[in-house]
Amino acid sequence: MKAEILCVGTEILLGDIVNTNAQFISKQLADLGIEVFHQSVVGDNPERLLEELKNGFERSDIIITTGGLGPTQDDLTKETGARFLGRELVLDKDSLENLKKRFSSMGRSYLKGNNVKQAYFPKGSKILPNPNGTAPGCIMEEGNKALIILPGPPKEVTPMFINYVKPILKKYSTRVIKSKTLRICGIGEGIMAEMASDIIKNSTNPTVAPYAKEEDTILRITAEAPTENEALDLIKPVESRLKKIFGINIYGEDNAKIEGVLGKMLVDKNYTISSAESCTGGLIAAKLVNYPGISQVFKEGAVTYSNEAKMNRLGVKKSTLDKYSAVSYETAKEMAEGIARTSNTDIGIATTGIAGPGGGSPGKPVGLVYIGLCIKGKTKVKKFQYPGNRATVRKRAVMSALDWIRREITDK
Amino acid sequence: MKAEILCVGTEILLGDIVNTNAQFISKQLADLGIEVFHQSVVGDNPERLLEELKNGFERSDIIITTGGLGPTQDDLTKETGARFLGRELVLDKDSLENLKKRFSSMGRSYLKGNNVKQAYFPKGSKILPNPNGTAPGCIMEEGNKALIILPGPPKEVTPMFINYVKPILKKYSTRVIKSKTLRICGIGEGIMAEMASDIIKNSTNPTVAPYAKEEDTILRITAEAPTENEALDLIKPVESRLKKIFGINIYGEDNAKIEGVLGKMLVDKNYTISSAESCTGGLIAAKLVNYPGISQVFKEGAVTYSNEAKMNRLGVKKSTLDKYSAVSYETAKEMAEGIARTSNTDIGIATTGIAGPGGGSPGKPVGLVYIGLCIKGKTKVKKFQYPGNRATVRKRAVMSALDWIRREITDK
Repeated sequence: MKAEILCVGTEILLGDIVNTNAQFISKQLADLGIEVFHQSVVGDNPERLLEELKNGFERSDIIITTGGLGPTQDDLTKETGARFLGRELVLDKDSLENLKKRFSSMGRSYLKGNNVKQAYFPKGSKILPNPNGTAPGCIMEEGNKALIILPGPPKEVTPMFINYVKPILKKYSTRVIKSKTLRICGIGEGIMAEMASDIIKNSTNPTVAPYAKEEDTILRITAEAPTENEALDLIKPVESRLKKIFGINIYGEDNAKIEGVLGKMLVDKNYTISSAESCTGGLIAAKLVNYPGISQVFKEGAVTYSNEAKMNRLGVKKSTLDKYSAVSYETAKEMAEGIARTSNTDIGIATTGIAGPGGGSPGKPVGLVYIGLCIKGKTKVKKFQYPGNRATVRKRAVMSALDWIRREITDK
Repeated sequence: MKAEILCVGTEILLGDIVNTNAQFISKQLADLGIEVFHQSVVGDNPERLLEELKNGFERSDIIITTGGLGPTQDDLTKETGARFLGRELVLDKDSLENLKKRFSSMGRSYLKGNNVKQAYFPKGSKILPNPNGTAPGCIMEEGNKALIILPGPPKEVTPMFINYVKPILKKYSTRVIKSKTLRICGIGEGIMAEMASDIIKNSTNPTVAPYAKEEDTILRITAEAPTENEALDLIKPVESRLKKIFGINIYGEDNAKIEGVLGKMLVDKNYTISSAESCTGGLIAAKLVNYPGISQVFKEGAVTYSNEAKMNRLGVKKSTLDKYSAVSYETAKEMAEGIARTSNTDIGIATTGIAGPGGGSPGKPVGLVYIGLCIKGKTKVKKFQYPGNRATVRKRAVMSALDWIRREITDK
């Protein structure tokens, strides 16, 4: 079973966006044991799209397209797919109803001409609902081949693929690839690879590979077998060995996020928490609030960017700021204690640092961040030095702060 | 002059890596005025690569490949390119010397068989040095067409393209493509396309195309001309007409970000600002802090997720929360007024809403957000209803809030 991916969008050819859809779909198909044979990108041009559909159907059994389903005159993927397979476009009443509902929920009273086009599909299509956008996708089966048409925005493609396309494609697949990911914070890819070098070198099925991600590092164990259970059985012993090596450094598995892991621990232990942020500017609070259950324990976040706010809101002493400056061990300590005290929480977490691009000095370079952590009256401060630009420094500081809390409240 | 990009690598087809080379090269070519016609990806398979080279040379004048230059038997791009153009591979002595130097600098005393392969090139190639890796690239010219072969790792491709390929390609470029992007918040892609439908329909050079992005919508004007100035002259009148149609709805141009536009306005006007966030949980503060100069005017952010914090920090009345609930017009108003008052700022911005997935009710569905804006003592509240998941609702609320401030403080 061979598949290929055909992305439609002049934006991709202009280099304005990176084609993450191709990667996401390729990865999904690999997991399903379906071989991806080819990826291609054409612009919003029906003739080139038609040519690529012809070539694709000669090479492969399944073509998955993304993009070109919008309401504008440029959006012609469905129209071209219909033309290629000799089908007419027909109105789908359910899709029209959904579109109307969506528009009215956004406070727009009626659909205008262009938007109605999104409720038309090639005759005989199976329609793929899109709760995250206005353009549903569709599948056209033709003999033993299939043309699967998906929208362009990744946040629409991802759920549509997982919820509607994957269950249909499973019937095409005869072998299974399963992966298990262990997520680690605070250890770089190189050191991680060294700590696990014996396992990495000597594993063929499953394979073990380390990857550096933006906010953390991961170890991925991947096994291939005729059934899911057999693949999982291959993974288990390797997973146990890696867990022994990395211990508490592993904060989560697969798609776990630090805020989910930490949020659940805080709720389970009923530890209340508050945050006081300078250089991270609200990102710690925002990350915690990503976890839907956090409202039970997260009392308050203070973004105290100015010295004034650090003093007024958190009770940081003027003498501390004068003597040690805002980016210091002492300020971080008083910030963490101040937010825990004024919010009356078990835990107070605080950051103060120099995210850049300006503000650095030889003694306090860009990337320097102090993190203060006050747990039930006891306060510790750690000093970090991050590489990278303003956004990276801030993201890494957030990750360090949340992972540190996790480590501190883990039962030992 | 038409070009296409052909990336070679099974890891791209497996979805293990995202194809950033294609984006980088596309963007570079667009800036050079060379039209990218097609992108494709094939695995480490010489027959498929050969087929794609044939198709590519029929469609385009320049093919740029990436990947498949490594030392392993899988790496066959140069070999296949040579076969396609009927050339033999010959040893390049300079490349061999460089390779030897590189190996000895890495503490390896001699080159092993496979590695020597990286010093062989199709006869008559112009060689592209690679100071960042072991595999040089090469250019083969054939009549008025060119095959440009680059390595795979982006950190090798980027400098090689800029230092060696770009100067050569400039001679191929007889036309320049320039784009201008107008960024709009608060109007969907469909309505935007309708508002500008006459211009979109009737424009060929420049073209005008609307796109929906995650946080905003954009209109891109793209012109092609023999020189940059002529292209800009083609863009200007269309840009003026679009600016008249969309007026204040346009918050920025090209790569502008709302926090940059708003941050600059706040600093220029010396308006101090503070934020009180419930559902957005710190994202407004974090966005403002993205703008490096914001410290002059951003006094404080409060993430008042609990009712307790809304009362204690912001002075929201218990009777208001009891009578109208936390997600209400009245609470948003008191939050905005409370943060402006307690932080002593000109502007207070506040959000309270139901980001989901839980917490919705028929009267107050998921996606409902009230935004309060207090400017110099005068407070307004707006009600928004966003589609999408928790993350999307929060991002859109942040965008609406910041764009609303921008609109309010724009000189009329």
